[in-house]
Amino acid sequence: MSNPSILILPGDGIGPEVMAEVKKVISWYGAKRDVQFDVSEDLVGGSAYDAHGTPLHDDTMAKAQEVDAVLLGAVGGPKYDALDFSVKPERGLLRLRKEMDLYSNLRPAQCFDALADFSSLKKDVVAGLDIMIVRELTSGIYFGEPRGIIEEGNERVGINTQRYTESEIDRVARSAFELAMRRGKKLCSMEKANVMESGILWREVVTEVGKDYPEVELSHMYADAGAMQLCRWPKQFDVIVTDNLFGDLLSDAAAMLTGSLGMLPSASLGAPMANGRPKALYEPVHGSAPDIAGQGKANPIACILSFAMSLRYSFDMGAEADRLEAAVEKVLADGVRTADLLGEEGVTPVTTSEMGDAIVSAL
Amino acid sequence: MSNPSILILPGDGIGPEVMAEVKKVISWYGAKRDVQFDVSEDLVGGSAYDAHGTPLHDDTMAKAQEVDAVLLGAVGGPKYDALDFSVKPERGLLRLRKEMDLYSNLRPAQCFDALADFSSLKKDVVAGLDIMIVRELTSGIYFGEPRGIIEEGNERVGINTQRYTESEIDRVARSAFELAMRRGKKLCSMEKANVMESGILWREVVTEVGKDYPEVELSHMYADAGAMQLCRWPKQFDVIVTDNLFGDLLSDAAAMLTGSLGMLPSASLGAPMANGRPKALYEPVHGSAPDIAGQGKANPIACILSFAMSLRYSFDMGAEADRLEAAVEKVLADGVRTADLLGEEGVTPVTTSEMGDAIVSAL
Ligand SMILES: CC(C)[C@H](C(=O)O)[C@@H](O)C(=O)O
Ligand SMILES: CC(C)[C@H](C(=O)O)[C@@H](O)C(=O)O
Repeated sequence: MSNPSILILPGDGIGPEVMAEVKKVISWYGAKRDVQFDVSEDLVGGSAYDAHGTPLHDDTMAKAQEVDAVLLGAVGGPKYDALDFSVKPERGLLRLRKEMDLYSNLRPAQCFDALADFSSLKKDVVAGLDIMIVRELTSGIYFGEPRGIIEEGNERVGINTQRYTESEIDRVARSAFELAMRRGKKLCSMEKANVMESGILWREVVTEVGKDYPEVELSHMYADAGAMQLCRWPKQFDVIVTDNLFGDLLSDAAAMLTGSLGMLPSASLGAPMANGRPKALYEPVHGSAPDIAGQGKANPIACILSFAMSLRYSFDMGAEADRLEAAVEKVLADGVRTADLLGEEGVTPVTTSEMGDAIVSAL
Repeated sequence: MSNPSILILPGDGIGPEVMAEVKKVISWYGAKRDVQFDVSEDLVGGSAYDAHGTPLHDDTMAKAQEVDAVLLGAVGGPKYDALDFSVKPERGLLRLRKEMDLYSNLRPAQCFDALADFSSLKKDVVAGLDIMIVRELTSGIYFGEPRGIIEEGNERVGINTQRYTESEIDRVARSAFELAMRRGKKLCSMEKANVMESGILWREVVTEVGKDYPEVELSHMYADAGAMQLCRWPKQFDVIVTDNLFGDLLSDAAAMLTGSLGMLPSASLGAPMANGRPKALYEPVHGSAPDIAGQGKANPIACILSFAMSLRYSFDMGAEADRLEAAVEKVLADGVRTADLLGEEGVTPVTTSEMGDAIVSAL
């Protein structure tokens, strides 16, 4: 059998810097654990636009369809703000999600013990927090038609469409129930069924899928109440499943609450390929942070933990993922901090590269 | 000139209980300050459904159109969960908002000094917090067509439409700029212009309106980043303007962050009527809390402060509004607490009615 293949798309801003540290980790696995990957690299986002006039070249799209996993850094930056909607850096990422059909976006919101003080929340509210938000990623208002800005009477109208089919809801709900089975067996589904018919269908289908998972305790919450409850007492949740747009806001809020934003990875999974592995893209939750790009200040941990998620979800190497996660925890426990994690007195920040080296040493 | 008129719609759950305390306050103004209101009362939500088979009777709708201000308690409850979408309690509230054309929903997120400890956020993050979220309330995905659940192929599809016209954005933006002028002169507009065309139009129109308010410092933020920043450091904001759906989530999150949820009022304002007063509806941000309804445990302060907002925004009685708000602060400073505000040792909770009496005494 050939080596598992990975396509690296560093993207924009701090993307290339954090990805350089992931490459060190991948090399370590090759040299020390004899886990070999076929790694290729390409452009996405603003950097692809600069090179090709499009945020994702068709050749890159084709490569992404063939590999076992895509690792993405981040896209976007003020340099591209004035670009037309259709070629904005984000469109590259959205095209990958849509054409690879990555319908299940796993966003852990986890509070690292060593970092609980960074949260704006009280320590007892976040210490030990470990929840998982499953966000639908290929449908809803992100992709629904009709969309656009049209003329009507003598003014313009901006239009987007939320559309969910039963099967789209069914498959993401199933992935969330499966996850809940491997975790705390509690699933909370969030929508606005009191206001939106798409939310009514969402609730019905999730309830129906729930019958196949009698062991999982299923609850439903309106998304506004969900936003409140995440802020009040996030530990009441185990797994949350929600649509693309609500998932965008709720997972970002949850990530910020942990105080560990620069630390949080994500996995976007699709249907199994011929080799049994799911289509998959892994990326940190943080953005391209153009303000600190190129200064060696970025925290590579979210990107490294995204690679750890690929070991777990794409390559069935749960033990190796545990090893990498433990190395990260050890480095943090040792007090190694990038600039975003400062706050304690007398700690000097390490660079992006030094953080990567520390994690490789800890491995 | 005839007395200003108020239509009271207590609604469901704790609505009638908290509204009873507002009536005491209204009586006090009549007796002690000779401020007379013509008060009438009617049904909305589940209680209207029970009486008439509809969550808002046409006669009630007509009355609401005629009065100077509507005061609403809360709608909804598990008793009505199984009702058809078209007659759910929420539809009564949504019909009022839509037919009165109450496009500008003002939701203060304010942290009461005496209650800063109730927040899940660290005290320095919330103490003194005082921001205002202006939510568009009559358009967007709440009301856009087409909507519904349709059959397509052999499955069902749930559809909702986000639709914003330039004039809809213009008028709510103007109301937000006006507010910013009377406050800290900072306005942050939130949308997802990186993903939604309706967000692009939103950003363009808000920017255009901003030219008429050169003194206001205008910024734009993606709504997911906005959710993060509200959780991280809410004091960076003064006024926030956003659409109906984002406003629903963001204002609820912000309200919860203050730790003063049972305390927060809201105003929903429309265009000026013939007498110069805006169409207006005032309601607490909290819901109908069916779990504690009828037990004398509910906190009437949010509803009383909603009446204070009516004094300010409908009746041009800013000084009387200040007086009522000061009375609430005094009662809190004196340590009077309803059950939702407990936490300190040795404090015995007062009932809904006792809290109302305490506020009237403080007036
Ligand atoms: C970059 C942007 C298109 C994206 C989204 O809105 O989905 C981001 O916010 C995310 O959550 O991954
Ligand atoms: C009750 C419900 C229809 C309403 C909304 O979604 O607008 C509520 O959540 C609110 O924020 O006022």
